[in-house]
Amino acid sequence: MITGKNYIGNVLSATGNTTFKTFNPQKNQENEVVFTEATTIEIEQAVELAREAFKIFKTISGVAKSKFLNEIANQILALGDNLLNIYCLESGLSKERAISERTRTIFQLHSFADLVKDGSWVEAVIDTANLERTPVPKVDLRKMLMPLGPIVVFGASNFPLAYSTAGGDTAAALAAGCPVIVKSHPMHAGTGELVAYAVIKAAEITGMPNGVFSNLNSSGIEVGVTLVKHPAVKAVGFTGSVRGGRSLYNTASQRPEPIPVFAEMGSVNPVILLPNAASKKAVFWAKNYAKSITQGAGQFCTNPGLILAVKSEGLTSFIETLAEEIIKIKPVCMLHPNIIGAFEDNKSTIQQQKGVKMVVDYNGEVSKNYGRQIITTVDAVRFLENTTLHQEVFGPFSMVVQCENVEQLQVVISKLEGQLTGTILAEDELENNLEIVNALQNKVGRIIFNGVPTGVEVCDAMVHGGPYPASTDSRFTAVGVNSIKRWVRPICYQNWPDKLLPNELKNENPLGIYRSVNGKHTVDVI
Amino acid sequence: MITGKNYIGNVLSATGNTTFKTFNPQKNQENEVVFTEATTIEIEQAVELAREAFKIFKTISGVAKSKFLNEIANQILALGDNLLNIYCLESGLSKERAISERTRTIFQLHSFADLVKDGSWVEAVIDTANLERTPVPKVDLRKMLMPLGPIVVFGASNFPLAYSTAGGDTAAALAAGCPVIVKSHPMHAGTGELVAYAVIKAAEITGMPNGVFSNLNSSGIEVGVTLVKHPAVKAVGFTGSVRGGRSLYNTASQRPEPIPVFAEMGSVNPVILLPNAASKKAVFWAKNYAKSITQGAGQFCTNPGLILAVKSEGLTSFIETLAEEIIKIKPVCMLHPNIIGAFEDNKSTIQQQKGVKMVVDYNGEVSKNYGRQIITTVDAVRFLENTTLHQEVFGPFSMVVQCENVEQLQVVISKLEGQLTGTILAEDELENNLEIVNALQNKVGRIIFNGVPTGVEVCDAMVHGGPYPASTDSRFTAVGVNSIKRWVRPICYQNWPDKLLPNELKNENPLGIYRSVNGKHTVDVI
Repeated sequence: MITGKNYIGNVLSATGNTTFKTFNPQKNQENEVVFTEATTIEIEQAVELAREAFKIFKTISGVAKSKFLNEIANQILALGDNLLNIYCLESGLSKERAISERTRTIFQLHSFADLVKDGSWVEAVIDTANLERTPVPKVDLRKMLMPLGPIVVFGASNFPLAYSTAGGDTAAALAAGCPVIVKSHPMHAGTGELVAYAVIKAAEITGMPNGVFSNLNSSGIEVGVTLVKHPAVKAVGFTGSVRGGRSLYNTASQRPEPIPVFAEMGSVNPVILLPNAASKKAVFWAKNYAKSITQGAGQFCTNPGLILAVKSEGLTSFIETLAEEIIKIKPVCMLHPNIIGAFEDNKSTIQQQKGVKMVVDYNGEVSKNYGRQIITTVDAVRFLENTTLHQEVFGPFSMVVQCENVEQLQVVISKLEGQLTGTILAEDELENNLEIVNALQNKVGRIIFNGVPTGVEVCDAMVHGGPYPASTDSRFTAVGVNSIKRWVRPICYQNWPDKLLPNELKNENPLGIYRSVNGKHTVDVI
Repeated sequence: MITGKNYIGNVLSATGNTTFKTFNPQKNQENEVVFTEATTIEIEQAVELAREAFKIFKTISGVAKSKFLNEIANQILALGDNLLNIYCLESGLSKERAISERTRTIFQLHSFADLVKDGSWVEAVIDTANLERTPVPKVDLRKMLMPLGPIVVFGASNFPLAYSTAGGDTAAALAAGCPVIVKSHPMHAGTGELVAYAVIKAAEITGMPNGVFSNLNSSGIEVGVTLVKHPAVKAVGFTGSVRGGRSLYNTASQRPEPIPVFAEMGSVNPVILLPNAASKKAVFWAKNYAKSITQGAGQFCTNPGLILAVKSEGLTSFIETLAEEIIKIKPVCMLHPNIIGAFEDNKSTIQQQKGVKMVVDYNGEVSKNYGRQIITTVDAVRFLENTTLHQEVFGPFSMVVQCENVEQLQVVISKLEGQLTGTILAEDELENNLEIVNALQNKVGRIIFNGVPTGVEVCDAMVHGGPYPASTDSRFTAVGVNSIKRWVRPICYQNWPDKLLPNELKNENPLGIYRSVNGKHTVDVI
C-alpha cells in the first residue's frame, strides 16, 4: 500500500501542504495516490536522524552491513507484483523491463553485500614502526577507508529501480557505512515509496540504527537544494540532466564546507565508423545501431546520439540502411509527458540548425507519449561551427556527422565535450588510426571496439563516468562495486594501540582481509 | 646562475614588465636578482606546450618516467651549495633544514620513480568475456588509471623544496604522466628557478617532450588565476592558506568545465590531553610539546595549535611546565616579513578575545623577523562561543582550552572544523573515552596516539589531508606515493584488440604487474 508519505527514518510522515501525483504515460492520465512533499522540518528530522545513525552505522561490521544489503534485496523481491505494477504505471515501461531492472537492482545489492562481507575493499595499508631508524625513529602508520557521513541520493527518471531509491548510489553508500537520504524522483514516487519500505523493513530486521535511511518526496527543487546545503550532509549522488547536476554541484561547492557531488549527467556517446568498417560492414552496423538507438525509446545515458564517419559509398549505404531498419521498429512509450516534450523540443531545435538534414522521422500512427525515432545528418563543417549540435537529445535520436576525411574526423573528436563512452567500429584499420583512438580516449570513461555503447555491465572493471559534462568527477565510476569509493576517505592511525584499532588494521588480521603490509599484498598476521 | 626568467618549457623567457625581488628575512633586506612575472602570452605558451607534451607524455612507459624522476633527483643534488645557499637566503631557514628538506625531496622523487617503474599502481582490473552467458553474452572489460592532463602546481611558502617546484605535487603528477606548470612561490623564486633548471635538464637528458614542465614567476595572484581558468588545465595542486586555497577552489569549480583542486590548507591539529596523562605525564608532554610548537618557528601545517584538556592539577602542571620549557627555546627567523606580520596580527587578535589569557610570551631580545613563541589559555565555554579562537595562527603559537569535564571536552571536539591531524595523549584510559576518539576521528585525516603531530612520514600508509578546511578533498593524501591518485582517472576498454591495449592490460601481462583478473589479485598471464 502506497501512502504518499515521506519516510523520516522508520516513521511515515506527511505534515506538509504541497502535494503532487505521478503520471501514467501509457494512459496519459495521472495516477491516483497523492504524495506530500517533505517540509523543512521533516528534512531537518531526516538529516538529524542520519547524523545520529552515522555514529553507530560507521562502526558496524562488514558482515552486518552485508546482511542488511541482502535483506533489502529480499524485501524488494517480497514486494512482488505490487512493485512491478506501480513501476509500469509510473514509467510507461514494460513489465519485462521492470523485471530486468529489478534483477539488476538485486544483483547490485548482492554485489555490494559480497564486497563488504569480504572486507578487503577498505584498502588497508600498514607501515610498521622502525625504532632503530636514524636520525628519527619511524612511527607505526596504518590507514584504511572510512565512510564520509550522511549522503543524499537523487534518483534517476530513467531507472526507477536500478539508479533510484535502492539503486547503485544508495547500495554503495550503505555498503560504505554512510546513512542515505533519498530525494525521491517525482515521476516515480510510488515505486520509490515501496522500495523505501523494503529498505526500512530490512534495516529493522537486521538491527540497523533508525535514520540509516530516509525517503523524501518532492515535485520541485527546494527539498533537494535544502538537503545539499545541510551541514551534516557530506556528499551527493545524482543521475540526470547536465543542468540539474551542475546546479547541485554549484550549490555544493559554494557551501562553507564544500562537499563532493557525483553527478552522472549527459552524453552523446560518439561512435566512430572507420572507412573499412563503413565499406565492408555498413549493413551489419546499421542494423545493430537501429536497435541500440531505439532501445528503451533511447532513454539511456549511453544512447549513441552521434555517429562520426568519412563520406564514402559505405557511409551512404550505412545511413540508408539505418533509416530503413529504424523505421521498421515500433515506437514505444516514453517516461513522462515532460520527457517526450523535451525530446520534441530538442529534435525541433536540431532540425532548425543550418545544414541539418532529416534522413528519417517515424511518421506512422503512434499513441500519445510514444517517442518517434529520428535520424539526422550534418556535414562536419556545420557541426564544428555550431555547438548546439553537440548537445544530447534524450530519446530515440541520432545524428550522423559526415566528414571530408580522417583529419577532419579527428578535429571533430577533439572538439567534443567529455563523454561516458566512445565507440570505434573498424576492420583491420585501428593501428592506422591511433591518433583517432588517442583523441577519443581523452574524452571518455569507456572506449568500445566493434560494439554498441548501450548495455552497462555491473562489474569490477566497469567505468561509468567520464570527463565533464559526462560526470562531475571523472575519477570515479557510478556503476560497479568500485563506486563505493565515492563515499569514503582514508584515515591514518599513528602508533595506535593494537586492541583499539579497527579490526581491519589489527596485527592479527581477525577479518582475514588482504592488506598491504610494508609494501606486500598479504592476508598474513603481523 | 639565477636569471629571474620564466621557463616556458625549456626556453627562458621574460617578456613582461612586472618585476619583483625575493627577501632575506635574516638580513631584513631584499635579495639581488630581479624576477620577471609571466605575461598572459607566456602563460598561454606554457599551457599550449603542456597540452602538446601530454599527447606524448601520457603514453611514455613507467620505466622511462622512472628514469626522468630519478634524473630530476640527480640534477637537484648536482646544484650543490648553490641551491642550499639560495634556499637559506630566501627563507631564513638554516642550512641544516635546507639539507634535510632536500633529502626529503630526493626521497619523494625516488619513491615515485620506484612506484611507476613497478607499474602496479595503475590498478589494472580485468573482467574477461563470457560469450555463453544468457540472456546477454558478457563483454571483455579492462580498466586502468590514466593521467588527467596538464596540472598546475602552486608551491608552498614553508617548504621551498619538498612542497614546491619539484616537491610532492609535481613528482606525483609527473609520475602519473601529467605535464606540470609550476606557479613559482614569490618568496623563493630563486630556489624555484634552480630546481626548475634541474627538472628541465633531467627532461632533456631522459628524452621527455618539451613542455612536460614549465615554471612561471609571479608576485600577485593573476598568473595563478589565469592558469586555473585555462581550459587545457585539468587539475590543481596547492599548499597554503585557507583563503588562498578556497579562492582557487572557487575559481576552478566555476569554470565551464570544473576541475579538481587539491588544496592542503590550514589546520590547528587539536591535541587531547586526557586526565590520567595530565596527572601522570604532565611534565613529559609539556617538554615534548614545547619543542613541537616551536619547531621551524611553528611554520608547519601540522603544528599543534590547540590543546584540549579537563581542568585538573595535572593540567595546571602541564601548562606551567609548557611555559617554562618553551621560554627556554631561542626564537628563530620566520620565512618572510609578511609571514611574521600575519603571525603578529593573528596573535594580537587572539589575545584581544574575551577570556583569553597569555601564559607566556617570549620577551627576550630577538632579531628582526624572529618569531616569539606564545602560549595562551581559554575556558571551553569562551572557546565554544567564539569561532575566531578556532582559526589557525601560523607560527610558534598554541592555545590550551580548559574544559570543565570530559563531556564538555567532547562538545569542543564536535565543534571543531576539519583537521589534518588529531592527537590523543592518554594513560590506560583510551578504552573509557571511545566517544572522544570517535568524535576526533570524524574530524581528521590522521589520528595519533601519544606523540606529536609534527613530522609527516613519506610512506604508503600516510594520510596528509583531512575534512575541509584541512584540505579541499579529504579523499586524497598530499604526502606519500598514494598522492599520485589525485592526478588520474580510470578508463575502461571494452572488447579491445589485445595487441592495441596498453601493456598494463594485455593478456600476456608484459610488465609483470599485479592486476585484479576476474576478482583475483595476480601477476598471471590470461
